[in-house]
Amino acid sequence: MAFYNVNKDSLSPDKRPHYAFSLFSSSDIELNDCLTQTITPEDELMEKKDVMRCRMEAFITNLQGRIIKKLQTYEPEQKFLVDRWLRKEGGGGITCIIQDGQVFERGAVNISVVNGTLPKGAVAEMRARGKTTIPADKDLPFFACGISSVIHPRNPYVPTVHFNYRYFEVEVAPNKYEWWFGGGTDLTPYYLDEQDVKHFHQTLKNGCDKHDKSFYGRFKKWCDEYFVIKHRNECRGVGGIFFDDFDQPNQNKAFEFVKSCGNSVLPSFIPLVEKNMTKGYGYKEREWQLLRRGRYVEFNLVYDRGTKFGLLTPGAKIESILVSLPLTAKWSYKHEPEIGSEEHKLSQVLKNPKDWL
Amino acid sequence: MAFYNVNKDSLSPDKRPHYAFSLFSSSDIELNDCLTQTITPEDELMEKKDVMRCRMEAFITNLQGRIIKKLQTYEPEQKFLVDRWLRKEGGGGITCIIQDGQVFERGAVNISVVNGTLPKGAVAEMRARGKTTIPADKDLPFFACGISSVIHPRNPYVPTVHFNYRYFEVEVAPNKYEWWFGGGTDLTPYYLDEQDVKHFHQTLKNGCDKHDKSFYGRFKKWCDEYFVIKHRNECRGVGGIFFDDFDQPNQNKAFEFVKSCGNSVLPSFIPLVEKNMTKGYGYKEREWQLLRRGRYVEFNLVYDRGTKFGLLTPGAKIESILVSLPLTAKWSYKHEPEIGSEEHKLSQVLKNPKDWL
Repeated sequence: MAFYNVNKDSLSPDKRPHYAFSLFSSSDIELNDCLTQTITPEDELMEKKDVMRCRMEAFITNLQGRIIKKLQTYEPEQKFLVDRWLRKEGGGGITCIIQDGQVFERGAVNISVVNGTLPKGAVAEMRARGKTTIPADKDLPFFACGISSVIHPRNPYVPTVHFNYRYFEVEVAPNKYEWWFGGGTDLTPYYLDEQDVKHFHQTLKNGCDKHDKSFYGRFKKWCDEYFVIKHRNECRGVGGIFFDDFDQPNQNKAFEFVKSCGNSVLPSFIPLVEKNMTKGYGYKEREWQLLRRGRYVEFNLVYDRGTKFGLLTPGAKIESILVSLPLTAKWSYKHEPEIGSEEHKLSQVLKNPKDWL
Repeated sequence: MAFYNVNKDSLSPDKRPHYAFSLFSSSDIELNDCLTQTITPEDELMEKKDVMRCRMEAFITNLQGRIIKKLQTYEPEQKFLVDRWLRKEGGGGITCIIQDGQVFERGAVNISVVNGTLPKGAVAEMRARGKTTIPADKDLPFFACGISSVIHPRNPYVPTVHFNYRYFEVEVAPNKYEWWFGGGTDLTPYYLDEQDVKHFHQTLKNGCDKHDKSFYGRFKKWCDEYFVIKHRNECRGVGGIFFDDFDQPNQNKAFEFVKSCGNSVLPSFIPLVEKNMTKGYGYKEREWQLLRRGRYVEFNLVYDRGTKFGLLTPGAKIESILVSLPLTAKWSYKHEPEIGSEEHKLSQVLKNPKDWL
């Protein structure tokens, strides 16, 4: 465990092998912003710069660095903790977290790069999703890498943001791979500012539209359907985009789309932070935020596929999985916001997802 | 929704039909302590006083009242809220809760009395548990009633207690019933006081021993095995007793055992409240308590069978199910208590359940 910029595993830019720099401009492998040494050695990533595993790992590791560096500018007094971990079996991850910051009450941006043998349960789940080319009765090697993040700001007028982009490969027969991308970005406000929500959705839509005009509409709907707290009959937040099993029209173009999504995170969210982070609030707004964070915990522990999969995986990095939970959450029996209040306005939108654009 | 003693549905003792009183002493139907009107009409309970459904409903409704009345004595300034609800389809429940009390930060004692048709998933789960006399392919009428409770005290030196006793009937063929009892009582301290834990276990053991000397040992072990936060590899607390599918040696004796368990709740727990509720504590102890309450939330939302079953049941009383959650919970990345500290002492016991007696 180490703090941002002081991790002894990291190669500071001036100590990086020179060839790395010479390659940055001519390849889509960019590592300038990485916070620590990459999980796969940097020279291997460079050598295999046409291999999707390496391209995606490089992209998410660098994206993690870019996002953390931006978020860090709002926290002059507290550094993000950078926790790089390796698995005995190969692979590892970089957990990057702040707790009790001035602007971010709890926030983490993590990457992980993992390979191993798919558990039978995961195979069954994939086949049920329609991936029938994955044989049911074999131990299958897989590779997965992804970036995932939840940022819970302190000020109740700044929404919580979540995003996650991942690449998955399964070796269904010797040297024959099934691959796909998945991911999404979504927003969970405590108070509804329609202008903010529109900005958020418009930024995601712009990222989608460059690739296919149908993407935003499809993935916005998917998001609304996924982030539902079923037992409450309400959405977790005001949505965004969500997709899985994405492999169209080809690997290169699918990757370009995922990069656009990842690159949309900061421009979709940072203006909301800057606009609202210094707004005044009191006990009532804080209490409401904590109750809503209780709902966030309910969704993540009861429904979120990634969290559930993680918790049930022996040897998983539990602390890295559960960084999605807020620092503090509350529950109150039958709390109902007063009709017509700002809290009620939000509740209504969560019960009836709408089109923002 | 109403407050203790002012519920307009309740019959105050002087308004109860006279015959009820004349029966109290000669039957095991006692309703003197009930907080509101019973769910099944009182005269029906009296008429069917040899029917187990009615005997159990009367027992749990009266037990709820006895426990609430005792807990209320520690809260002179705040009344427990009594929320009696009925289902259109028949049955209902009484949710009884305090929030932000002086001694109890959040605590609830609920009863429910429900009948309906068993969902297919529940049948499959029961058959998997060994109840192979329950046919897999039919819509089966069932009846269930139970009392369940979690009390989260404010002072970190007072443990959280949980108990739950229930009776289940399935009509496997016309007028042919499978029936069983289930339940348990367990303790979740924030600081380990071995004397307190011994008192708690000894009281439960005394209740068990009256019926069968083997019960405490078997049900203590079952409790240790059930209340495990698997992804943390630690127990939720220091255990107690837990059992399910209990139908031995006959219905009457099984019920007498369950009554002993229910009647052990107050004597096992109240001395711990009285001993510790005024102890001084500071920020450090409160923070530790809140982190442990985060673990409580993890167990209840991820593993607890009753909670999961409830959340997945359409039309369930979500707020009554989730009263088990604390008022406030916290999460902190890789929090580890200092070796040798009181917090560490507790952690060690949670990782290695021990025999207390």
